[in-house]
Amino acid sequence: MEKRLQSIPLKNIRIQDEFWDRYIKLVTSKILPYQWEVLNDRVEDAELSHCIRNFEIAAGRKSGEFYGFVFQDTDLAKWIEAAAYSLACHEDKKLVDTVDWAIELIGEAQQPDGYINTYFTIKEPEGRFTNLSEGHELYTAGHMMEAAVAYYNVTGKDKFLKIMCKMADLLCDTFYTESFKNAIPGHQEVEIGLIKLYGATGERRYLDLAKAFIDRRGHKPNHLEEERKKEGWKDVFHNPDPFIPEYSQCDEPVRIQKTARGHAVRAVYMYSAMADLAYEYKDKELMDACERLYEDIVQRQMYITGGIGQSGIYERFTVDYDLPNDRNYSETCASIGLALFCRRMAQITHDSGYVDTMERALINTVIAGISMDGEKFFYVNPLEVWPENLLPYTSMAHVKPVRQRWFGCACCPPNIARTLASLGEYAVFVSDNSVWINMYMGEKFEIDLKGAHVDIEVKTKMPFAGQSSIAVHSDRDICFELMLRIPEYADKSSVRVTTEAFSLDGETVSSHMDKGYLRVEVGLDSGNSKSSEIQLDFDIHARFIYANTNVRADAGKVAVVKGPIVYAMEEADNASNLFSFAVDTKAAISEKWDEELFGGCMVLEVSGVRSESPDGDFGNLYSSDAPKEIPASMKLIPYAYWNNRGKGEMLVWMRRLSGK
Amino acid sequence: MEKRLQSIPLKNIRIQDEFWDRYIKLVTSKILPYQWEVLNDRVEDAELSHCIRNFEIAAGRKSGEFYGFVFQDTDLAKWIEAAAYSLACHEDKKLVDTVDWAIELIGEAQQPDGYINTYFTIKEPEGRFTNLSEGHELYTAGHMMEAAVAYYNVTGKDKFLKIMCKMADLLCDTFYTESFKNAIPGHQEVEIGLIKLYGATGERRYLDLAKAFIDRRGHKPNHLEEERKKEGWKDVFHNPDPFIPEYSQCDEPVRIQKTARGHAVRAVYMYSAMADLAYEYKDKELMDACERLYEDIVQRQMYITGGIGQSGIYERFTVDYDLPNDRNYSETCASIGLALFCRRMAQITHDSGYVDTMERALINTVIAGISMDGEKFFYVNPLEVWPENLLPYTSMAHVKPVRQRWFGCACCPPNIARTLASLGEYAVFVSDNSVWINMYMGEKFEIDLKGAHVDIEVKTKMPFAGQSSIAVHSDRDICFELMLRIPEYADKSSVRVTTEAFSLDGETVSSHMDKGYLRVEVGLDSGNSKSSEIQLDFDIHARFIYANTNVRADAGKVAVVKGPIVYAMEEADNASNLFSFAVDTKAAISEKWDEELFGGCMVLEVSGVRSESPDGDFGNLYSSDAPKEIPASMKLIPYAYWNNRGKGEMLVWMRRLSGK
Repeated sequence: MEKRLQSIPLKNIRIQDEFWDRYIKLVTSKILPYQWEVLNDRVEDAELSHCIRNFEIAAGRKSGEFYGFVFQDTDLAKWIEAAAYSLACHEDKKLVDTVDWAIELIGEAQQPDGYINTYFTIKEPEGRFTNLSEGHELYTAGHMMEAAVAYYNVTGKDKFLKIMCKMADLLCDTFYTESFKNAIPGHQEVEIGLIKLYGATGERRYLDLAKAFIDRRGHKPNHLEEERKKEGWKDVFHNPDPFIPEYSQCDEPVRIQKTARGHAVRAVYMYSAMADLAYEYKDKELMDACERLYEDIVQRQMYITGGIGQSGIYERFTVDYDLPNDRNYSETCASIGLALFCRRMAQITHDSGYVDTMERALINTVIAGISMDGEKFFYVNPLEVWPENLLPYTSMAHVKPVRQRWFGCACCPPNIARTLASLGEYAVFVSDNSVWINMYMGEKFEIDLKGAHVDIEVKTKMPFAGQSSIAVHSDRDICFELMLRIPEYADKSSVRVTTEAFSLDGETVSSHMDKGYLRVEVGLDSGNSKSSEIQLDFDIHARFIYANTNVRADAGKVAVVKGPIVYAMEEADNASNLFSFAVDTKAAISEKWDEELFGGCMVLEVSGVRSESPDGDFGNLYSSDAPKEIPASMKLIPYAYWNNRGKGEMLVWMRRLSGK
Repeated sequence: MEKRLQSIPLKNIRIQDEFWDRYIKLVTSKILPYQWEVLNDRVEDAELSHCIRNFEIAAGRKSGEFYGFVFQDTDLAKWIEAAAYSLACHEDKKLVDTVDWAIELIGEAQQPDGYINTYFTIKEPEGRFTNLSEGHELYTAGHMMEAAVAYYNVTGKDKFLKIMCKMADLLCDTFYTESFKNAIPGHQEVEIGLIKLYGATGERRYLDLAKAFIDRRGHKPNHLEEERKKEGWKDVFHNPDPFIPEYSQCDEPVRIQKTARGHAVRAVYMYSAMADLAYEYKDKELMDACERLYEDIVQRQMYITGGIGQSGIYERFTVDYDLPNDRNYSETCASIGLALFCRRMAQITHDSGYVDTMERALINTVIAGISMDGEKFFYVNPLEVWPENLLPYTSMAHVKPVRQRWFGCACCPPNIARTLASLGEYAVFVSDNSVWINMYMGEKFEIDLKGAHVDIEVKTKMPFAGQSSIAVHSDRDICFELMLRIPEYADKSSVRVTTEAFSLDGETVSSHMDKGYLRVEVGLDSGNSKSSEIQLDFDIHARFIYANTNVRADAGKVAVVKGPIVYAMEEADNASNLFSFAVDTKAAISEKWDEELFGGCMVLEVSGVRSESPDGDFGNLYSSDAPKEIPASMKLIPYAYWNNRGKGEMLVWMRRLSGK
């Protein structure tokens, strides 16, 4: 394996980008303050959170009963993690005080032996670690560990880190004992937390426990199955269904799994940990499993939007090429998990293909998960919506026609917040001798490279136009490699790269490519200059995309993308019954910048026909007469922007006029 | 209102029809004996029924616990009803003895006050009538009443009839008391039973109670909601969800309901009772509601196969034009209920449009519900199936890729049996002065008309060819009207009718039409002849059908029908991935009789293209290159015949080459 690439500490990178700022700024201005109010039950029209109150009860500060899901604590954990990333970019004394107050509270809620989980502390003190399949204790601990490490990395404050180390120590002491020698988490996540805790402390046994959890998974006897047979086993999640090993990826050893299966978030969180562990232990077999599972997702089970998890029931993967567009789950958190997995794979393999998928998930599904005002969220991200049939108590009940304020099960909103606040970790990687530009966004960052202090500034018109420039400055003489990702959607033959020293295009670009990155030598010396600027130009004109013919749901259909952005038709721009339109793929796609729409948006227009029933739209249900086809043009907006103008239909995969 | 048309007593009609015999004969030869074994738990690979055993326990003959659904008794009821209809056509001493044995047992299981229901008798004697929303007591009673009336009508034996009258008396005594003055059944069906019991006994208060149940429904206070608030109310169905008034059509008074909603079987059973009551009470408002709800179904919520109930969850209607083809429920029993409703409406209104729908449901969905060997059954009847994605614990779990032996909840198999065994009641109606031929099937029947004994024999090539002949013979001089249904799918301008006296075609046929029936005067007298033969010829060539453009699921698609038969592509005749095919609707549909296939079947062939991914079927999931289109022809078989050759894909609505 090659040496893993590193993310830049968030405090050393500043994103200033026309496209992304809209969302990133929401974290600090809207989401963190709003979510803090929600966690404290001070938002009237949001569902009750009770999260802080649960900690106060567990800490003995207040009396009362636990309320919420068994994993309610993670809302606070993800909020702290997002707050930490936000603090890396913006000093905010008040926010630091709030987080410190929360950490104080968490510390008080911790039990003398290190155990921390408000559900079991308040409600089932005897039930601790007896229901790992549903109890989410280890899942919750994992998110708490991630938050503790994030806050420590940004602020240097180690109180929360120590709290979580004490919990991790308890886990290490517990999960090798005879009763727990086969134990695994029901919902994977603690593996990521333990690996991060190892990264912050160097405590090897945290890493080893994460590895043990992965290695035990899918072997017989299955602890999650066995624990249910014990006398007094208590159902804490009120799930009426039997234990389904496949649901939590423990039906066979993870190393031999060939297809992504089960609950999508669990799957990609696990794959993320597997990638980290494969690197740490130089475990090629585990790495092969990661690559195989990744291929299964992106080649057979992923929506064009980077959404994953095709079944509304159980939020799970189904089978290869099963990609229904209307009833899918495609949870926002699952796409976040996919991005986490891809980031790790890209760091380990230096292959930009993973970044293509990461960007696809982030720029389409993850930001679709949040409204432009930062106050409403999608859990479920379908690719076609007809609001009328999204009825409660039907097969479509899980799909919502509009974003919701806050969910009873509130995993997505704080997960979006922590992802947006840490976007710098996805955008750029560094190694000893090179800087890797993954996602083109306006940003400045500084790194120490071979003893020199290097400043880099990226300016870009991406994702709506293909031009970027990268200015490099160093305080001393230095030679290093700038690795520029050439996205899969940029036609290689049209890429143009220009520096003061040379110019590359088309064929010459191809000859300098390494796993999807263009290698550019940058030499800054006194004989030349301590600055250099590189100009990039990608051809990212809008184009039609066709699904593999095995995808039954997309047969005879076409989607439109521009660069990484998947486009969609919305009722607001067209008419109701978007299915009545069909696109002529031989006609041009027109692109037009609309300064007013969504505060500036590249709008696309395609042409084709609109069908009308021969005897009128409300005539017979079935007829021998074919619908009439009337010439029509259709306006498209970025998928992520949909449902920011009220309730209405939306459609990504449009019918295509055949033979054209 | 016109005078209601009557069905002919089943003992006076013999069906001998190439198409239908295959299924009808199964009732006597296979289904009744097999289901009897199932009811007695003597079939090894079927799910446990325990139905007879429950009666034995309730009767005190055996000890043990109740097992099965709360409505398990209805399996025996529907079996007896089917047996009765079978006995009308075939003498069978052994079957009579078996039924009498069962009736003896039912009598012993009846409580002294008349109450009969094994679930409550064995398991919840105190719970009687306390959980009408889920308990299915009245639903069960309704099926028992239908069975009792059927057996009485065919055999003249009144023991079962008296048992059920005693139960009906108990209901009449109970359901007007103060506690039950607003009570209604959770699952409608007892209304039909009470109306039939009134028909057999003339006891008016049975009819009145049925009417009361309909009139109370949807008014406040809602008894089904109120009963749950009572102390000690017990959930007997283990339904985790709240009470949903719409689910059982009690969200608003039935008279003002404009759209079919809720559980589809409940809905159409209720509409059937409403039609009967509207006629009995000359209640125009109720009749208007029936017509309005019928229109909503057939113009906006019915599959081309006559399937109804679009949501897999809750087996319910959703909204107008929502007709997904893969995840729908379209329960076999719902189509049976639709046929029951249509039969009543046709009898009352003399309008053949109802017969068109009745035939559509019977000849497509109802017989799709049973395998050609009579041993396996579909509950759920989708219009497209891709077996790979029908996974348990997903949104598609309710759809089965192959028919099942016997269900834990076994409503469909005995319901199919009683429907097939009573098909004569659907085929022909009579009034004082006329004979109405509804469905063209080979049959002989005898009626007494104006004092004459009339024999009629229908010979037909329907549904696969359009020729029929009707031979009429009388023992004395008589003039009467023969009302010949001209189906909606027969081109009126091409209908040819020939008798010895005259010949009609095209325009002349149209001028003799009355609500879809062609009126033919038949005069049999000594000056002429006491026999007459009428020849009919319909043009029922195969044709393409298009859905209203509001049906999103069928946009850009086409179906093929021949006469009443909906056709489907099956993997066995074509290839996997049926969605890769697209039909050229400008090309001819070829028809070919295949003597071998399914023991004789009209097979259709259409032409078009098959799409292939540019880089092979297992290449990239998404690509800028459009699929290649390769000329192809596709073979179609009747939808009802699908899945008689093993597991595979099936498709009714095929992609259509646009602009063609």
